[in-house]
Order: sequence, then C-alpha cells, then structure tokens
Amino acid sequence: MLNSSVIERHAVEKITSDDFRRTFRNHPGGVAVITADAGEGPVGLTATSVSSVHADPPTLVFSASQMSSSTPALLRAETVVVHLLSAGQVDIARLCATSGIDRFADSSIWSRLDSGEPYFPSAQSWLRCRVIERVPVSGSTLVVAEAVEASPERATDDDDSRALVYHNRTWHALGDATRF
Amino acid sequence: MLNSSVIERHAVEKITSDDFRRTFRNHPGGVAVITADAGEGPVGLTATSVSSVHADPPTLVFSASQMSSSTPALLRAETVVVHLLSAGQVDIARLCATSGIDRFADSSIWSRLDSGEPYFPSAQSWLRCRVIERVPVSGSTLVVAEAVEASPERATDDDDSRALVYHNRTWHALGDATRF
Repeated sequence: MLNSSVIERHAVEKITSDDFRRTFRNHPGGVAVITADAGEGPVGLTATSVSSVHADPPTLVFSASQMSSSTPALLRAETVVVHLLSAGQVDIARLCATSGIDRFADSSIWSRLDSGEPYFPSAQSWLRCRVIERVPVSGSTLVVAEAVEASPERATDDDDSRALVYHNRTWHALGDATRF
Repeated sequence: MLNSSVIERHAVEKITSDDFRRTFRNHPGGVAVITADAGEGPVGLTATSVSSVHADPPTLVFSASQMSSSTPALLRAETVVVHLLSAGQVDIARLCATSGIDRFADSSIWSRLDSGEPYFPSAQSWLRCRVIERVPVSGSTLVVAEAVEASPERATDDDDSRALVYHNRTWHALGDATRF
C-alpha cells in the first residue's frame, strides 16, 4: 500500500513536456548566435541559453540541442564564436534559427577571423571561445567555453544597439521606456 | 623565437575579466529565483542563468556562483524550486540578490510546498525540480535539474505578469510596445 501510494503521488506530480515548454515560453532570454567550423564548413545556430559562468577566467556556457542540424558539427569544433546580438542584428538571429536553408549562402554578411572561425562582423559584440567541456544531458549538450578574444567596442547609443530579447516566440527590444 | 611569438600573440588575445563582465552586462536575461532547503534552513538566490535544456524529460540548467553565500547550501539540496519571475515579483528578485540579509525574515512572503521546499507563492510560475547533475566549472557549478512539479497556471494579462528582464544592472518589463 505504501509503495502504491508513493507511485501514485509521483505520477500526479510529473509534468508534461507541453507544460514545461509553456512555462519556458514565458521566460525571456537574451539572443546569441554561435558559429564554428570544425573543418566541414561553417555552421551557426541561434540560442537563448548563453550565460556567463565566471569572469576570471572568462567562462560561459550554452546548450546545443540534438534537434538542431548544426549541433553535431558545432560539437566537433575546438573553438566557437559567440555573438551577443542587439536589435539591429535580428536578421542574423532569424537566419540562424531557420531550418532547411544554407545559413551561409550570402557571403556578404559573414567573414572569417584571422584564426579561421566564421563570424558575423555586424554583431554588436562577439567572443571567440575555446571549448573546455562538453556535458551531455538529456537530448542536449552543455558547452562550457573560455573566452579568448573579444570584438572591438562599439558605440551603443542608437536604435540598432538596443538589447534584443526573445520571449513567447517574438522579438523584443529594450529601451529607456521598458525600465522600471 | 617561434615560441616567444606564439606566447605574445596569445597574450594580446587574452581578454580581461573586466572586458568579459562589460560584454555580458549588455546581454539581457530572464530573471529567476531558486530556493532550497538541505536541512539547514531556507536559502534563495536570484539568477539570470536559468535555461531550458530539453522538454522530455523536462530538464533545465542554471549556474550557482561560489561568490554567493547561498550556493553551498543550495548545492547540498536534492530538490530545488526554480521561480520564473514576472515584473510584479521584482521585489523577490531584489531580495534574493541582496547580500548580508536574512532573505527569509519576512515569513508572510514565503511558504513551503507539501514536499517541504521553501517557495514564494506570489511567483508567476515555478517548477519544483530534482537535481540530476552538478558540474563544477571555474568558480561556479552548473546545476542540471529535472522538473517534477509545476505551479498552477495563472492569468497573464495584467501589468504584473509582464516578462521581467535584467539588463545592464537595471530591471525591464516587456510589453506590446517592445515587440518588433
């Protein structure tokens, strides 16, 4: 009887993947595009999972879902470029979130760093990172990386430099009016 | 000569922790408060690092810095409550981001779930989670957790339910005016 009651309680508590997706849809996130080339050509994916882990050494983490076609190649790369996007670069975010297209077909919008990685020079800021750990978790891989190079500083006082946020399947831009 | 040149180039590329902090200050984040009680009393901390890893099983990750006084107790807990906050709960976010105070002194704003964890019932949504992995990285620990229980659904059409974002040391609320 005790076991059965414990099992029943557990079953009631289990949340569905739809409940979970709905909950996170309402959790806003900053927008990043991560690019890499492990020798098979450039790949790029849009992620809202990038966060700073530690400042010294400068360390960040993001997750790469097995659902993304870019993930296998991204996980083979030793270095990646993490672009932290502003409102003016929403087109790059959309591009790298679109399935079934060649995200690097337009050669006018991307280039390569001296060290070889593909990147989007129009991004407000980017960090070239050395991958230091890959942690497989269910259906995804956490990538821990140390930043080794940063983009030059940019002016941040125009509309294009407003912070970009993804929330409930929509893009938002922060500004003075959104503060409280 | 070759070695020395390589070392010099590496030194130029290394970014400082100040560069890194400045870069991430401009990366907005959704706001969460994570609570737990490993048997030593309730602890709570504010984090912008919570992100969804996978929907089935429902899995999330966050990072807990060694700099936070709540982290050691949080890391001893087998279960945690991850509150995803909206604008109406910014006071809870501020409370759990303030050092040197008893974050649970006001017993009117928190309670305990049937399963024992401390939580803030006013939060727009929360997920009770079972910790499945703790990954030490430099100066921090990544906590991977599976959601096992979700808060009841709430109405999300008033000012208090606007999405809460932390950016450049300031709180922002999303709304129709911020979409584009």
